[in-house]
Amino acid sequence: METETATRWLSDAEQRAWRTHLDVSRLLTHQLERDLQPFGLTMNDYEILVNLSEAEDQRLRMSDLASLTLQSKSRLSHQITRMETAGLVQRENCESDRRGLFAVLTDLGGETMRKVAPYHVASVRKHFMDLLTPEALAELHAALTPIADHLRGRRGRP
Amino acid sequence: METETATRWLSDAEQRAWRTHLDVSRLLTHQLERDLQPFGLTMNDYEILVNLSEAEDQRLRMSDLASLTLQSKSRLSHQITRMETAGLVQRENCESDRRGLFAVLTDLGGETMRKVAPYHVASVRKHFMDLLTPEALAELHAALTPIADHLRGRRGRP
Repeated sequence: METETATRWLSDAEQRAWRTHLDVSRLLTHQLERDLQPFGLTMNDYEILVNLSEAEDQRLRMSDLASLTLQSKSRLSHQITRMETAGLVQRENCESDRRGLFAVLTDLGGETMRKVAPYHVASVRKHFMDLLTPEALAELHAALTPIADHLRGRRGRP
Repeated sequence: METETATRWLSDAEQRAWRTHLDVSRLLTHQLERDLQPFGLTMNDYEILVNLSEAEDQRLRMSDLASLTLQSKSRLSHQITRMETAGLVQRENCESDRRGLFAVLTDLGGETMRKVAPYHVASVRKHFMDLLTPEALAELHAALTPIADHLRGRRGRP
Protein backbone atom coordinates (compact mmCIF):
# COMPACT_ATOMS: atom_id res chain seq x y z
CA MET A 1 0.00 0.00 0.00
CA GLU A 2 1.30 3.36 -1.02
CA THR A 3 1.08 5.96 1.74
CA GLU A 4 0.29 9.58 1.11
CA THR A 5 3.78 10.73 2.07
CA ALA A 6 5.25 8.48 -0.61
CA THR A 7 3.07 9.96 -3.34
CA ARG A 8 5.00 11.55 -6.17
CA TRP A 9 2.55 14.38 -6.91
CA LEU A 10 2.61 15.85 -10.41
CA SER A 11 4.79 18.92 -10.95
CA ASP A 12 3.20 22.05 -12.43
CA ALA A 13 4.56 21.21 -15.89
CA GLU A 14 3.29 17.64 -15.59
CA GLN A 15 -0.14 18.85 -14.43
CA ARG A 16 -0.48 21.24 -17.34
CA ALA A 17 0.56 18.63 -19.90
CA TRP A 18 -1.75 16.05 -18.35
CA ARG A 19 -4.70 18.45 -18.31
CA THR A 20 -4.08 19.33 -21.97
CA HIS A 21 -3.95 15.66 -22.93
CA LEU A 22 -7.19 14.95 -21.05
CA ASP A 23 -8.98 17.91 -22.61
CA VAL A 24 -7.90 17.00 -26.14
CA SER A 25 -8.87 13.40 -25.58
CA ARG A 26 -12.34 14.33 -24.36
CA LEU A 27 -13.12 17.27 -26.67
CA LEU A 28 -11.85 15.57 -29.81
CA THR A 29 -13.97 12.47 -29.23
CA HIS A 30 -16.94 14.73 -28.63
CA GLN A 31 -16.29 16.72 -31.82
CA LEU A 32 -15.77 13.67 -34.04
CA GLU A 33 -18.91 12.00 -32.67
CA ARG A 34 -20.83 15.19 -33.38
CA ASP A 35 -19.56 15.33 -36.96
CA LEU A 36 -20.67 11.72 -37.55
CA GLN A 37 -24.14 12.23 -36.03
CA PRO A 38 -25.81 13.50 -39.26
CA PHE A 39 -24.91 10.14 -40.82
CA GLY A 40 -26.42 8.18 -37.94
CA LEU A 41 -23.05 6.70 -37.01
CA THR A 42 -20.92 6.71 -33.86
CA MET A 43 -17.12 6.59 -33.88
CA ASN A 44 -17.34 2.91 -32.93
CA ASP A 45 -19.68 2.18 -35.84
CA TYR A 46 -17.36 3.97 -38.22
CA GLU A 47 -14.33 2.11 -36.97
CA ILE A 48 -16.05 -1.26 -37.42
CA LEU A 49 -17.02 -0.35 -40.99
CA VAL A 50 -13.40 0.64 -41.74
CA ASN A 51 -11.98 -2.56 -40.28
CA LEU A 52 -14.43 -4.77 -42.17
CA SER A 53 -13.95 -2.92 -45.45
CA GLU A 54 -10.19 -3.43 -45.21
CA ALA A 55 -10.44 -7.13 -44.33
CA GLU A 56 -10.26 -10.00 -46.81
CA ASP A 57 -13.75 -10.74 -48.17
CA GLN A 58 -14.90 -7.84 -45.99
CA ARG A 59 -15.38 -10.15 -43.03
CA LEU A 60 -13.72 -10.67 -39.65
CA ARG A 61 -14.09 -13.14 -36.84
CA MET A 62 -15.88 -11.38 -33.95
CA SER A 63 -12.95 -12.00 -31.59
CA ASP A 64 -10.51 -10.42 -34.08
CA LEU A 65 -12.81 -7.44 -34.58
CA ALA A 66 -12.97 -7.00 -30.80
CA SER A 67 -9.16 -6.94 -30.64
CA LEU A 68 -8.84 -4.52 -33.55
CA THR A 69 -11.36 -2.07 -32.10
CA LEU A 70 -10.20 -2.48 -28.49
CA GLN A 71 -13.63 -3.49 -27.26
CA SER A 72 -14.79 -6.28 -25.01
CA LYS A 73 -16.53 -9.12 -26.85
CA SER A 74 -19.81 -8.49 -25.04
CA ARG A 75 -19.79 -4.80 -25.89
CA LEU A 76 -18.95 -5.53 -29.51
CA SER A 77 -21.74 -8.08 -29.69
CA HIS A 78 -24.32 -5.46 -28.62
CA GLN A 79 -22.91 -3.04 -31.13
CA ILE A 80 -23.00 -5.55 -34.00
CA THR A 81 -26.64 -6.25 -33.14
CA ARG A 82 -27.46 -2.57 -33.52
CA MET A 83 -25.51 -2.33 -36.78
CA GLU A 84 -27.20 -5.48 -38.07
CA THR A 85 -30.59 -3.88 -37.42
CA ALA A 86 -29.41 -0.86 -39.42
CA GLY A 87 -28.42 -3.19 -42.27
CA LEU A 88 -24.72 -2.23 -42.18
CA VAL A 89 -23.29 -5.62 -41.19
CA GLN A 90 -24.40 -9.23 -40.97
CA ARG A 91 -23.45 -12.08 -38.65
CA GLU A 92 -22.42 -15.32 -40.34
CA ASN A 93 -21.40 -18.75 -39.15
CA CYS A 94 -18.55 -20.29 -41.00
CA GLU A 95 -19.20 -23.99 -41.42
CA SER A 96 -15.58 -24.93 -42.01
CA ASP A 97 -14.39 -23.01 -38.97
CA ARG A 98 -15.64 -23.91 -35.55
CA ARG A 99 -13.94 -20.95 -33.95
CA GLY A 100 -17.14 -19.07 -34.31
CA LEU A 101 -19.05 -16.22 -35.65
CA PHE A 102 -18.01 -13.69 -38.28
CA ALA A 103 -19.15 -10.14 -38.88
CA VAL A 104 -19.53 -9.32 -42.58
CA LEU A 105 -19.89 -5.93 -44.24
CA THR A 106 -23.13 -5.61 -46.27
CA ASP A 107 -23.40 -3.66 -49.52
CA LEU A 108 -25.18 -0.91 -47.62
CA GLY A 109 -22.40 -0.91 -45.02
CA GLY A 110 -19.78 -0.52 -47.75
CA GLU A 111 -21.70 2.28 -49.46
CA THR A 112 -22.22 4.04 -46.15
CA MET A 113 -18.53 3.92 -45.37
CA ARG A 114 -17.55 5.27 -48.79
CA LYS A 115 -20.08 8.08 -48.43
CA VAL A 116 -19.04 9.07 -44.90
CA ALA A 117 -15.25 8.64 -45.16
CA PRO A 118 -14.49 11.96 -46.91
CA TYR A 119 -16.44 13.87 -44.26
CA HIS A 120 -14.82 12.00 -41.41
CA VAL A 121 -11.32 12.56 -42.81
CA ALA A 122 -12.10 16.26 -43.27
CA SER A 123 -13.17 16.37 -39.62
CA VAL A 124 -9.97 14.63 -38.44
CA ARG A 125 -7.93 17.08 -40.51
CA LYS A 126 -9.76 20.17 -39.31
CA HIS A 127 -9.73 19.36 -35.61
CA PHE A 128 -6.41 17.54 -35.27
CA MET A 129 -4.10 16.90 -38.20
CA ASP A 130 -4.01 20.35 -39.77
CA LEU A 131 -3.16 21.91 -36.39
CA LEU A 132 0.11 19.95 -36.26
CA THR A 133 3.29 20.54 -38.25
CA PRO A 134 4.82 17.32 -39.64
CA GLU A 135 7.52 17.64 -36.93
CA ALA A 136 4.95 18.04 -34.16
CA LEU A 137 3.00 15.05 -35.50
CA ALA A 138 6.15 12.92 -35.51
CA GLU A 139 7.01 14.01 -31.94
CA LEU A 140 3.47 13.35 -30.76
CA HIS A 141 3.52 9.90 -32.34
CA ALA A 142 6.91 9.07 -30.81
CA ALA A 143 5.79 10.22 -27.37
CA LEU A 144 2.52 8.26 -27.47
CA THR A 145 3.87 5.01 -28.91
CA PRO A 146 5.31 3.56 -25.66
CA ILE A 147 2.09 4.51 -23.87
CA ALA A 148 -0.04 2.82 -26.53
CA ASP A 149 2.15 -0.31 -26.36
CA HIS A 150 1.95 -0.37 -22.57
CA LEU A 151 -1.84 0.00 -22.54
CA ARG A 152 -2.46 -2.47 -25.39
CA GLY A 153 -0.35 -5.00 -23.51
CA ARG A 154 -2.55 -4.64 -20.44
CA ARG A 155 -5.85 -5.25 -22.22
CA GLY A 156 -7.96 -7.87 -20.52
CA ARG A 157 -5.56 -8.13 -17.60
CA PRO A 158 -6.85 -7.28 -14.13
CA MET B 1 -19.93 20.32 -50.29
CA GLU B 2 -16.63 18.53 -50.43
CA THR B 3 -16.45 15.91 -53.17
CA GLU B 4 -14.62 12.65 -52.82
CA THR B 5 -11.97 13.63 -55.37
CA ALA B 6 -11.07 16.68 -53.28
CA THR B 7 -10.54 14.61 -50.11
CA ARG B 8 -7.07 14.87 -48.67
CA TRP B 9 -6.80 11.30 -47.38
CA LEU B 10 -4.38 10.67 -44.53
CA SER B 11 -0.87 9.56 -45.45
CA ASP B 12 0.48 6.37 -43.91
CA ALA B 13 2.44 8.34 -41.31
CA GLU B 14 -0.64 10.41 -40.47
CA GLN B 15 -2.80 7.30 -40.20
CA ARG B 16 -0.39 5.62 -37.83
CA ALA B 17 -0.09 8.69 -35.63
CA TRP B 18 -3.84 9.19 -35.61
CA ARG B 19 -4.48 5.55 -34.72
CA THR B 20 -1.97 5.76 -31.86
CA HIS B 21 -3.60 8.91 -30.53
CA LEU B 22 -7.06 7.30 -30.69
CA ASP B 23 -5.88 4.14 -28.97
CA VAL B 24 -4.14 6.01 -26.15
CA SER B 25 -7.14 8.25 -25.69
CA ARG B 26 -9.51 5.30 -25.40
CA LEU B 27 -7.35 2.85 -23.46
CA LEU B 28 -6.09 5.42 -20.97
CA THR B 29 -9.60 6.58 -20.11
CA HIS B 30 -10.60 2.96 -19.69
CA GLN B 31 -7.60 2.22 -17.44
CA LEU B 32 -8.06 5.29 -15.22
CA GLU B 33 -11.78 4.59 -14.83
CA ARG B 34 -10.97 1.03 -13.85
CA ASP B 35 -8.45 2.19 -11.24
CA LEU B 36 -11.06 4.53 -9.70
CA GLN B 37 -13.81 1.89 -9.62
CA PRO B 38 -12.83 0.39 -6.21
CA PHE B 39 -13.48 3.82 -4.72
CA GLY B 40 -16.90 4.09 -6.34
CA LEU B 41 -15.84 7.10 -8.40
CA THR B 42 -15.74 7.86 -12.13
CA MET B 43 -13.16 10.16 -13.75
CA ASN B 44 -15.86 12.83 -13.94
CA ASP B 45 -16.64 12.49 -10.23
CA TYR B 46 -12.97 12.77 -9.39
CA GLU B 47 -12.50 15.83 -11.55
CA ILE B 48 -15.43 17.58 -9.91
CA LEU B 49 -14.03 16.83 -6.44
CA VAL B 50 -10.63 18.25 -7.50
CA ASN B 51 -12.14 21.42 -8.94
CA LEU B 52 -14.29 22.06 -5.86
CA SER B 53 -11.47 21.34 -3.43
CA GLU B 54 -9.26 23.89 -5.21
CA ALA B 55 -11.97 26.58 -5.33
CA GLU B 56 -12.42 29.35 -2.76
CA ASP B 57 -14.66 28.12 0.06
CA GLN B 58 -14.73 24.79 -1.82
CA ARG B 59 -17.68 25.94 -3.89
CA LEU B 60 -18.31 26.80 -7.53
CA ARG B 61 -21.22 28.16 -9.51
CA MET B 62 -22.68 25.29 -11.55
CA SER B 63 -22.03 27.12 -14.82
CA ASP B 64 -18.37 27.65 -13.91
CA LEU B 65 -18.01 24.00 -12.91
CA ALA B 66 -19.51 22.98 -16.27
CA SER B 67 -16.92 25.12 -18.08
CA LEU B 68 -14.03 23.80 -15.99
CA THR B 69 -14.97 20.17 -16.52
CA LEU B 70 -15.98 20.65 -20.20
CA GLN B 71 -19.46 19.26 -19.66
CA SER B 72 -22.86 20.49 -20.74
CA LYS B 73 -24.92 22.03 -17.92
CA SER B 74 -27.58 19.36 -18.21
CA ARG B 75 -25.08 16.52 -18.00
CA LEU B 76 -23.35 18.17 -15.05
CA SER B 77 -26.67 18.60 -13.31
CA HIS B 78 -27.40 14.86 -13.52
CA GLN B 79 -23.93 14.10 -12.26
CA ILE B 80 -24.20 16.48 -9.29
CA THR B 81 -27.49 14.82 -8.38
CA ARG B 82 -25.76 11.45 -8.22
CA MET B 83 -22.86 12.87 -6.21
CA GLU B 84 -25.30 14.62 -3.86
CA THR B 85 -26.99 11.27 -3.22
CA ALA B 86 -23.56 9.82 -2.39
CA GLY B 87 -23.00 12.69 0.06
CA LEU B 88 -19.94 14.05 -1.77
CA VAL B 89 -21.33 17.44 -2.77
CA GLN B 90 -24.26 19.65 -1.96
CA ARG B 91 -26.27 22.14 -4.00
CA GLU B 92 -26.69 25.59 -2.47
CA ASN B 93 -28.50 28.73 -3.47
CA CYS B 94 -26.58 31.92 -2.85
CA GLU B 95 -29.03 34.59 -1.64
CA SER B 96 -26.80 37.52 -2.56
CA ASP B 97 -26.16 36.21 -6.06
CA ARG B 98 -29.02 35.72 -8.44
CA ARG B 99 -26.81 34.07 -11.03
CA GLY B 100 -27.79 30.78 -9.60
CA LEU B 101 -26.92 27.58 -7.95
CA PHE B 102 -23.62 26.53 -6.44
CA ALA B 103 -22.08 23.11 -5.94
CA VAL B 104 -20.27 22.79 -2.61
CA LEU B 105 -17.83 20.12 -1.47
CA THR B 106 -19.01 18.28 1.67
CA ASP B 107 -16.65 17.05 4.39
CA LEU B 108 -17.11 13.53 3.07
CA GLY B 109 -16.32 14.76 -0.46
CA GLY B 110 -13.10 16.37 0.77
CA GLU B 111 -12.06 13.27 2.73
CA THR B 112 -12.83 11.05 -0.25
CA MET B 113 -10.69 13.19 -2.53
CA ARG B 114 -7.74 13.18 -0.11
CA LYS B 115 -8.04 9.42 0.24
CA VAL B 116 -8.27 8.70 -3.49
CA ALA B 117 -5.78 11.29 -4.82
CA PRO B 118 -2.58 9.31 -4.10
CA TYR B 119 -3.96 6.26 -5.89
CA HIS B 120 -5.17 8.28 -8.84
CA VAL B 121 -1.82 10.07 -9.20
CA ALA B 122 -0.02 6.73 -9.01
CA SER B 123 -2.28 5.48 -11.80
CA VAL B 124 -1.60 8.55 -13.99
CA ARG B 125 2.15 8.07 -13.40
CA LYS B 126 2.13 4.36 -14.13
CA HIS B 127 0.08 4.47 -17.32
CA PHE B 128 1.17 7.80 -18.78
CA MET B 129 3.66 10.10 -17.08
CA ASP B 130 6.41 7.63 -16.24
CA LEU B 131 6.44 6.38 -19.84
CA LEU B 132 7.50 9.83 -21.07
CA THR B 133 10.88 11.49 -20.78
CA PRO B 134 10.68 15.15 -19.74
CA GLU B 135 11.54 16.08 -23.35
CA ALA B 136 8.81 13.85 -24.78
CA LEU B 137 6.32 15.31 -22.29
CA ALA B 138 7.24 18.85 -23.33
CA GLU B 139 6.92 17.96 -27.02
CA LEU B 140 3.59 16.25 -26.45
CA HIS B 141 2.31 19.27 -24.55
CA ALA B 142 3.51 21.68 -27.24
CA ALA B 143 1.91 19.58 -30.00
CA LEU B 144 -1.44 19.27 -28.20
CA THR B 145 -1.77 22.87 -27.01
CA PRO B 146 -3.03 24.38 -30.32
CA ILE B 147 -5.48 21.48 -30.66
CA ALA B 148 -6.77 21.99 -27.11
CA ASP B 149 -7.16 25.74 -27.75
CA HIS B 150 -8.99 25.11 -31.02
CA LEU B 151 -11.38 22.60 -29.45
CA ARG B 152 -12.01 24.66 -26.30
CA GLY B 153 -12.85 27.63 -28.50
CA ARG B 154 -15.48 25.59 -30.35
CA ARG B 155 -17.34 24.40 -27.24
CA GLY B 156 -21.07 25.00 -27.46
CA ARG B 157 -20.82 26.18 -31.05
CA PRO B 158 -22.70 24.25 -33.72
